Amino acid sequence: MTETTPKTRVEKDTMGSLDVPADRYWGAQTQRSLQNFKIGGEKMPVPLVRALGVQKLAAARVNMALGALDAKVGEAIVAAAREVADGKLDDHFPLVVWQTGSGTQTNMNANEVISNRAIEMLGGEIGSKSPVHPNDHVNCGQSSNDTFPTVMHIAAAVEATGHLIPSLRHLHKALADKAEAFAEIIKIGRTHTQDATPLTLGQEFGGYARQIEYGIARVEASLARVYELAQGGTAVGTGLNAKIGFAEAFADEVAKITGLPFITAPNKFEALAANDALVELSGALNVLAASVMKIANDIRFLGSGPRSGLGELLLPENEPGSSIMPGKVNPTQCEALTMVAAQVMGNHVTVTVAGSNGHFELNVFKPVIIYNVLQSIRLLGDAAVSFADNCVVGIEANTRRIDELMRNSLMLVTALNPYIGYDNAAKAAKTAHKEGTSLKEAVVKLGLLTEDEFDRYVDPKLMIGPSA
Amino acid sequence: MTETTPKTRVEKDTMGSLDVPADRYWGAQTQRSLQNFKIGGEKMPVPLVRALGVQKLAAARVNMALGALDAKVGEAIVAAAREVADGKLDDHFPLVVWQTGSGTQTNMNANEVISNRAIEMLGGEIGSKSPVHPNDHVNCGQSSNDTFPTVMHIAAAVEATGHLIPSLRHLHKALADKAEAFAEIIKIGRTHTQDATPLTLGQEFGGYARQIEYGIARVEASLARVYELAQGGTAVGTGLNAKIGFAEAFADEVAKITGLPFITAPNKFEALAANDALVELSGALNVLAASVMKIANDIRFLGSGPRSGLGELLLPENEPGSSIMPGKVNPTQCEALTMVAAQVMGNHVTVTVAGSNGHFELNVFKPVIIYNVLQSIRLLGDAAVSFADNCVVGIEANTRRIDELMRNSLMLVTALNPYIGYDNAAKAAKTAHKEGTSLKEAVVKLGLLTEDEFDRYVDPKLMIGPSA
Amino acid sequence: MTETTPKTRVEKDTMGSLDVPADRYWGAQTQRSLQNFKIGGEKMPVPLVRALGVQKLAAARVNMALGALDAKVGEAIVAAAREVADGKLDDHFPLVVWQTGSGTQTNMNANEVISNRAIEMLGGEIGSKSPVHPNDHVNCGQSSNDTFPTVMHIAAAVEATGHLIPSLRHLHKALADKAEAFAEIIKIGRTHTQDATPLTLGQEFGGYARQIEYGIARVEASLARVYELAQGGTAVGTGLNAKIGFAEAFADEVAKITGLPFITAPNKFEALAANDALVELSGALNVLAASVMKIANDIRFLGSGPRSGLGELLLPENEPGSSIMPGKVNPTQCEALTMVAAQVMGNHVTVTVAGSNGHFELNVFKPVIIYNVLQSIRLLGDAAVSFADNCVVGIEANTRRIDELMRNSLMLVTALNPYIGYDNAAKAAKTAHKEGTSLKEAVVKLGLLTEDEFDRYVDPKLMIGPSA
Amino acid sequence: MTETTPKTRVEKDTMGSLDVPADRYWGAQTQRSLQNFKIGGEKMPVPLVRALGVQKLAAARVNMALGALDAKVGEAIVAAAREVADGKLDDHFPLVVWQTGSGTQTNMNANEVISNRAIEMLGGEIGSKSPVHPNDHVNCGQSSNDTFPTVMHIAAAVEATGHLIPSLRHLHKALADKAEAFAEIIKIGRTHTQDATPLTLGQEFGGYARQIEYGIARVEASLARVYELAQGGTAVGTGLNAKIGFAEAFADEVAKITGLPFITAPNKFEALAANDALVELSGALNVLAASVMKIANDIRFLGSGPRSGLGELLLPENEPGSSIMPGKVNPTQCEALTMVAAQVMGNHVTVTVAGSNGHFELNVFKPVIIYNVLQSIRLLGDAAVSFADNCVVGIEANTRRIDELMRNSLMLVTALNPYIGYDNAAKAAKTAHKEGTSLKEAVVKLGLLTEDEFDRYVDPKLMIGPSA
Repeated sequence: MTETTPKTRVEKDTMGSLDVPADRYWGAQTQRSLQNFKIGGEKMPVPLVRALGVQKLAAARVNMALGALDAKVGEAIVAAAREVADGKLDDHFPLVVWQTGSGTQTNMNANEVISNRAIEMLGGEIGSKSPVHPNDHVNCGQSSNDTFPTVMHIAAAVEATGHLIPSLRHLHKALADKAEAFAEIIKIGRTHTQDATPLTLGQEFGGYARQIEYGIARVEASLARVYELAQGGTAVGTGLNAKIGFAEAFADEVAKITGLPFITAPNKFEALAANDALVELSGALNVLAASVMKIANDIRFLGSGPRSGLGELLLPENEPGSSIMPGKVNPTQCEALTMVAAQVMGNHVTVTVAGSNGHFELNVFKPVIIYNVLQSIRLLGDAAVSFADNCVVGIEANTRRIDELMRNSLMLVTALNPYIGYDNAAKAAKTAHKEGTSLKEAVVKLGLLTEDEFDRYVDPKLMIGPSA
Repeated sequence: MTETTPKTRVEKDTMGSLDVPADRYWGAQTQRSLQNFKIGGEKMPVPLVRALGVQKLAAARVNMALGALDAKVGEAIVAAAREVADGKLDDHFPLVVWQTGSGTQTNMNANEVISNRAIEMLGGEIGSKSPVHPNDHVNCGQSSNDTFPTVMHIAAAVEATGHLIPSLRHLHKALADKAEAFAEIIKIGRTHTQDATPLTLGQEFGGYARQIEYGIARVEASLARVYELAQGGTAVGTGLNAKIGFAEAFADEVAKITGLPFITAPNKFEALAANDALVELSGALNVLAASVMKIANDIRFLGSGPRSGLGELLLPENEPGSSIMPGKVNPTQCEALTMVAAQVMGNHVTVTVAGSNGHFELNVFKPVIIYNVLQSIRLLGDAAVSFADNCVVGIEANTRRIDELMRNSLMLVTALNPYIGYDNAAKAAKTAHKEGTSLKEAVVKLGLLTEDEFDRYVDPKLMIGPSA
Repeated sequence: MTETTPKTRVEKDTMGSLDVPADRYWGAQTQRSLQNFKIGGEKMPVPLVRALGVQKLAAARVNMALGALDAKVGEAIVAAAREVADGKLDDHFPLVVWQTGSGTQTNMNANEVISNRAIEMLGGEIGSKSPVHPNDHVNCGQSSNDTFPTVMHIAAAVEATGHLIPSLRHLHKALADKAEAFAEIIKIGRTHTQDATPLTLGQEFGGYARQIEYGIARVEASLARVYELAQGGTAVGTGLNAKIGFAEAFADEVAKITGLPFITAPNKFEALAANDALVELSGALNVLAASVMKIANDIRFLGSGPRSGLGELLLPENEPGSSIMPGKVNPTQCEALTMVAAQVMGNHVTVTVAGSNGHFELNVFKPVIIYNVLQSIRLLGDAAVSFADNCVVGIEANTRRIDELMRNSLMLVTALNPYIGYDNAAKAAKTAHKEGTSLKEAVVKLGLLTEDEFDRYVDPKLMIGPSA
Repeated sequence: MTETTPKTRVEKDTMGSLDVPADRYWGAQTQRSLQNFKIGGEKMPVPLVRALGVQKLAAARVNMALGALDAKVGEAIVAAAREVADGKLDDHFPLVVWQTGSGTQTNMNANEVISNRAIEMLGGEIGSKSPVHPNDHVNCGQSSNDTFPTVMHIAAAVEATGHLIPSLRHLHKALADKAEAFAEIIKIGRTHTQDATPLTLGQEFGGYARQIEYGIARVEASLARVYELAQGGTAVGTGLNAKIGFAEAFADEVAKITGLPFITAPNKFEALAANDALVELSGALNVLAASVMKIANDIRFLGSGPRSGLGELLLPENEPGSSIMPGKVNPTQCEALTMVAAQVMGNHVTVTVAGSNGHFELNVFKPVIIYNVLQSIRLLGDAAVSFADNCVVGIEANTRRIDELMRNSLMLVTALNPYIGYDNAAKAAKTAHKEGTSLKEAVVKLGLLTEDEFDRYVDPKLMIGPSA
C-alpha cells in the first residue's frame, strides 16, 4: 500500500457521509448497514445476489424501452448488472441477513455497486452518483418493496429448478435403478418394526423412488406461484412511479434471461404484503425432508450390523467409522441426510413464523425467509446427490441373510387365511413362536394342513402381489 | 334396566374373552384397546369413522363383484356399513387417537361394529362372529395397513372439499365484496408499520382476498395426491390376499359414493410406508394459517382505537369486551382466527414429525396425523366462516379518519421523485417532519416547487397506480 | 318437561337480552359467545374451569377480608365457587377455546355461573344479578386480564404437580427397576445403529431412567415462574380498582387451597402482556417428548422380531396386532407414546407462536396456549403411566439372543487397542468381517496375539466400565 | 510456488492413502470427509473447534497425570491443543456440519491437526503419526462418542455465559434505564390492540425488562445440565479404555480452564445417547425468541408514524429507510431482532427433531444440534446488543402525543366502576363514543355524576396502581 492509494473513499447518502473501502463498489447505505447490524455472520445468499443482477439488468432494459432511461446510462447499468448476475461481484455484497426486513439495504447495495461500476465503465468518478445514480437510475421505477420479493422468487426458482430438481432426479434414478436391480429378491416385510408378510427388495426401493418422484412433483407444483413476480408494485403495490407496462415487460425480460416461465403477479398487494408463495415452496421442501428422513432411516436399519443388526443391505464403506472402535463402518451418508432433513423442518417453521408476521402493505421478514428457503434448497439438493453417489449406488443386497430371515418368518402364515381362517392361522403362528418351531411344523402338528398343502399354499413368490 | 337385561356380553378375540357393554356393537379388540390405552380423551375424529363406513361399504361391494363375498353376507355388510357412513353408529366408536399407530384397533372397531350390526340384521347372535365374521368378511381382502391410510385420505378429502373449501370461498367472497365496496377510498399505505405512499382500502382488501384465493388453490393442488388410495396394498403393499382388480374397483366405488376423483395409488408401498400426501396437505393448511394470521392482524390494527389507535376500520361490536372496562369492544373474531392459525402451525409440525418417522413397510403415526389434519381443516373452515360472518361483512370504513391520516402524510413526497429527485424529496420530507409543517409548506420553503406545481404533482388519486 | 317449565330464561348484558337454557347457570355473555364462536368443538379444558373456581373462591375471601365484599354476598360466592372448583358445575362451562384471546368470555362464564348459583343459594332470582352481581361482586377487584393468566398458571401447576410428575415418577420407577433387574446382562452396544462395544442391558435402561429423572427436574424447574400469579394486575397490570394488598393475599389464599407455593407476580405487566412462563413450561414438556420418542424407539427396535428383528427384548403381548396377519404382536404402547411425543412437539410450536404474538399490555392467545399446555401435560402423564404399566413392567430380556449377538460381535476388538494399537485392531476386525470368521481367529491368524492372550484381553465383563 | 514446494502431501488412515494440502495440518480422515460430504457450506462452528482445543488439552493433562501418556508426547499435545483453543488453527478445520452424525470426522480433524502440529513441534515428520499418533495419543482414552457431546456442552456453555448472557444483561439494562426514565409518563394502555386503562411508559418498559431478566434466569437454569460432561463414557457410555478417575479429573480440568462449573455427567449412557440438555437449552432460547418478538413488535408499533401511526415513541433514525420513499425511517433494529426470533424458533424445532431421533447408545444428530444451538446463541446475543445500542438507548417518548391520546381516552371510565357501577359506566363510555364527546360530558349528561365528582374520581395519576 503506497501513499497514493487511499484505503477508503467517502460515500454519501441522505443522512450524511462515511468512509467505505476503496476497493469495493458499495456506497454509503451499504456501509451504514454494515455498521448498524453486527449480527451473526450469515451473509445474504449468493443466489439472491446473482438474482439482483438479473433483476437490475431486466429493469434497465425495460426502462430504456419505455423511455425512462437513456441508452448510455441504461446500457452501462445492463453491463454492470450482468457482472453481478454472473457472480463477478459477489465480494461486493457484504451485508448480513439480519438487517432491515424489507431487504432494502441489500437492494441499495445492488444499486450502489451497479451505479459505481457503471460510472467506472463510463469513466466517471466512483461515489459521485453521476452519471449513474443508484436511486434515480439503477432503481428507476423500482422500490425495495417490489424488488426484493422479486429477487427472492427469481433466486428460489432458479435454485429449485437448476439445482434441487436435477439433484432429486439423480437420487430418484439411483433408487429406481436399485428397485430394478433388486426386483427378484424376496424378503421379509416389516410393519410396526415387527416381522410381516414378504415383499421384494425392489418393491421396497420402488416405494422410496416414488416418494422422491412425488417430492419433485410437489416442488414443481409449488413453483407455479413462485413464478409470479412482484416487480411493478413499487412501494406499496400500487405501482406508483413505475410506468404502465413496466411490470409485464419486466417479467417477460426475466423469463427470457432465466428460461423460466415468470409472469407478473396479478395482485401486487398480495405479492408485497405476504410471502405465501415461499411458505408454500418451503412446505414442499418440508415434505421432502419427511420423505428422506424415512428413506435414510430405513436404509441405515436395513444395513445395520455387521453381526447384530438386520443386515439385509451392505452399505458402501466410505471412511473409518470410529476413533475408538477399529474397523467400524457407519451409515454416515444417512446421517448427513437426516440431519439435513431436521434442518429443513426447522427452517420451514422459521419461514412459516416469518411469513405470518407481515403487517399492512409489507412483510418485513423477507431476508430470513429467503435465507432459509435457499438453505433448504441447497442442502436438500447437495445431500440428495451425496446420498445417491456415496450411498445408494453402492448398496448391495445381502441375499444370504435376506433369504434366511424370510424363510424363518412366521408371518408367512398370512397366506393361509383363505384356507384355514384367521383364527386358526393365528393359533399356528403362536404355536410356532412359543415352541420355537417352523410354521410348517406347527400347522401340521395342529392338524390344520398336510405338509404338501402347506408347501403349496405358502410360497413367498405368490405372496408379493394380489391373487387371481 | 331389569334383572333380565345384562349390562355386558362376552366377546372374544385371538387372545381371549372379555366383557363389553351390552348396548354397544363393538367387540373384544375394541374393548381391549379401551383398557390398554387410557390416554387423553381425544377420540378418533368423526369424519374418519364415517369414512370407515364408506370404505367397508365399498370393499364389500367389490368383494361381492369379485366373488370373494356371497351376496347375503355382503349385502348385510353394505347395510351396516352405510349406517356407519351415515353417522348413525358414531357412539360405537369409543377409541382414542393414542392407540396402535396403524389404526388397527379402529379398523377392528369398524369390523366388529359392522359385523355385529350385520349379524343383528340377519337375525344372528351378536358376538358370535357368524354369519358375518369381522376379519374374514368385513375385513375381507383388507388389512388395517391399507384400510387406515385409505380412510385417512377419504376423510381428509371429504372434509377439505365439503367443509374447508366452501368456507374459504365464503371468506373470500366477504373480502372481495369489501374490496369492491372500498374501491374508491384512498388511504395511507404502511410499510415497516410506518407511513408510506397511498393506496385504496379496496386494494388492501383485494390483497387479502387474493391470499385466500391462492389458499384455496393450494389446498386443491395438494388434494391430487390425497385422492390416491392405499386400499389393495393389504399388509405391506404387495396386495397379498386381495384379488387382482380389487384395488382399482374399490377406488372407483369410493369415487362413486363420494363424488370425488379417487384413484388407486399407483405405488402401494409408498402409500402405506409414508403419509407424505397428508404432510403435503397439512403444508397447504399451514400456508392458510400464515395468511389468516396476517389478515386478522391487519384488521385488528386498522380497527384499533376507538381513540388511541389507527382507527381506519370500524369492526362490528359483537359482545362486551371487558369484565372491568365498561364499553370496551374487542376484535374477538380476529383473536379466535389467529389462535386457530397458531394451532394449525403447531399441528403441521406434529404432522411433519409424525410423517417423517415411518419405518420399513408402515408409518405407525397414522392416527395422530389424521387427528391433526382433520382438526386443522375443521378449525380453519369454521373460523373462516365465523370471521367472515361476524367480522368481515360488518366492517365499515371510518372515512373521515382515513382521509385525515392520508392528507397529513409526508410520504406523498414520493410522487415528487420524478420532478425534484430522490435526494431533494428526502430533504423536503425531513424538513416537514422536523418542523411539524405540511409537506407542501416544506417544499415551497425549500424552493423546490411552487404551490401550484406541488398541487399538480401530488395528487393521491394519481398515486394509486402506475403512470402513463 | 311440563308446560309450566320454560326451556329458556332471559339474561341481559350491556348489549341487550338473550335467551339461555333454563337449566344452565350461565348468562348473557356466555350465550353470546356460544353464538358468535361456532368454531371446532374443543371446549375450555376442565382443569382450567376448576381453577376458575379456586380463583373466584380465593378472590371472594380476600375481598371480604379487605372489606370490598360484605359477608353475605362473599360467602355465597365462596360456596358457589367451591362447587366450580369441585367439578360439580363442569356442564355449565360450554365455551370453546376459539373465542376472545383474553379468555374474557370464560371468565364471564365463571362470573355468571357463580353469580346465578350464589343468587339461587340466597333465594334470589337467577338472572337478576342481585344480590350477587357477576361483575361487581364475583369479579370484584378483578379483570379477565389478570384472572385468566392466573387460572392458566393454577391449572398448569396443579396438573403438572398432581398428574404429570407423579406419572413420570411412575415411569421412572418402572425403568429404574428394569435397570436393576437387567444389571448383569451383558449385551452388544449399538452406535450409528451399528454394532459397537458391549454394555449391560441395565446400563441401557439406566440411561432411559435418567432421561425421565431429568425430565421431572426440568418440569419442576420451569414451575418456579408458573407459581407467579398475575392476579392483582387487573386490566393492564397497574392494579386499578384492586385494593392494595389484594394481590399478595390472593396468592397466599390460592397457595393455601392448592398446597402449591404460589406467589404474586413481582411484575404484573410482564404477567399479563406475555405468557413466557408457559412457553417455558411447554419447553420442558418438549424435552420430555424428545426423551420418550428416543426411549420408545429403542424399545420397539430392541423388541423387534420375533424372528427377523433384533429380538433382544420380549415386549408384553397386549392385543392382537393385525387384522390380516394372524399372531402378530406389535409394540403398540411405544406407538401411542411416540404419537403423543409428536403431538407435544407440535403443541410446543403452537404455544411458542402464540406466546410471541402478544401486543402491548396483553397477550390475546391465552386460550390456545393453555389448551395446548394442558393437553401436553395430560397426554404425557397418561401415556407415561400406560407405557409403564402396559409395556415397561412386562419387558423381559431374551437372554439367549442377547448373548449370541454379543459373542459374535467384532467390536470386542476395541478392547485390544491398548495391546495391539488402533490400526492393527482395525485390520483384525476387517479380516474377520470379510472372511466371516470370529475375531479371535482373525487376530491369531494375523499373528497379533496368541489365543491365550486374546481370551485374557477380550472379556466382555471387563468392557463395561473404565479400567484401573 | 517453486518446484521444491509440493502442493500436497500423502496422509493415511485405515482405509488407505490420499493427498491433503501441504499447508494444512489435517490428515486422511478429514480429507476423506471433505470429499464424501459436499453438502452446503456451513462449517463446524468456530466455538466448537475452540472447545475441541480445550478438550484435547484437558484430556492430555489428565492422561499424563494418570500415566496414560508420557510427558513428552503429552506436553506437545497440550501445546498444540492450546493453539486450537486460542483460535490459531481455525483454518485447519474445513469440515461441514453435514457429515457423520457423531461428529467423528471433526473429532478426527482435531486429532489429526493436533497430532501433526505436535509432531512438527517435536521436529518429526508431519503425516508420520509418530511420535504423536492421532488416535493412540491425541484421542487417548477418548471416543468421538464422548468427546463430541463434551465439546458441544463446552462450546454452548462458553458462548451462553461469555456472549449471550452479557448481551442480554446489556439489553436488560437499556430497557430498565428507559423504565426509570419514563417512570412519570402516564399513557393510555392497550389490550386487544384497543384502548384500555392508563399506565406509565415506565411500567410498560419495566415489563419488557422483566421478560429479559427472566430470559437470563431461564438460560442460567438450563445450563445446570449443560455443565455435565460426557467425557469418560468413551464408545457407548461404559468408559471402556478410559482409566478410572479420568472422567472426574477431566471435568475438573475443563472447569479450571474455562472458569465454568463443569462436572462429569453422573450417567454417561444418557449423555451419549441423548442430547436432552441441549434441547432444554434451546427451549430457553426459544422463550427468549418469543419475548423479543413481543418487545420488538410493541416498540415498532408504538413508534409507528410519523403521522399515521401510534406515534408514542420516537425511534432513532439510523439509516435511510426506503429506496423509493424519500425521508422514510424504519424500525430496522426491530426487524432484525424479530427475524432473529423467527430463526431461533425454527432452530429450536430442528434441535427438537434431531434430539428425538437418537438410536440405542448414540444420538447421531449431534452436529446439526450444536450448529443450531450456537447459531441461536450468537444471533440472540448479537441482536440483543445491536437492538439495545442502535434502538433502545435512543428511544425518546413523544410526550405531547402520549398525553393527547391518554386524555382523549374513554377507558378512563373504568375508574368510575366503584362509584356508578359497571353497567352505568359502560353506558357513559358508549354514549361518549357514539356522540364523539368527552367522557366527562357524557357522564354529566347522563346525570351520573357532577363535573366535580368526575374530576375527583377520574385522575389518571390514581389509575396506575391499586387503591388504598
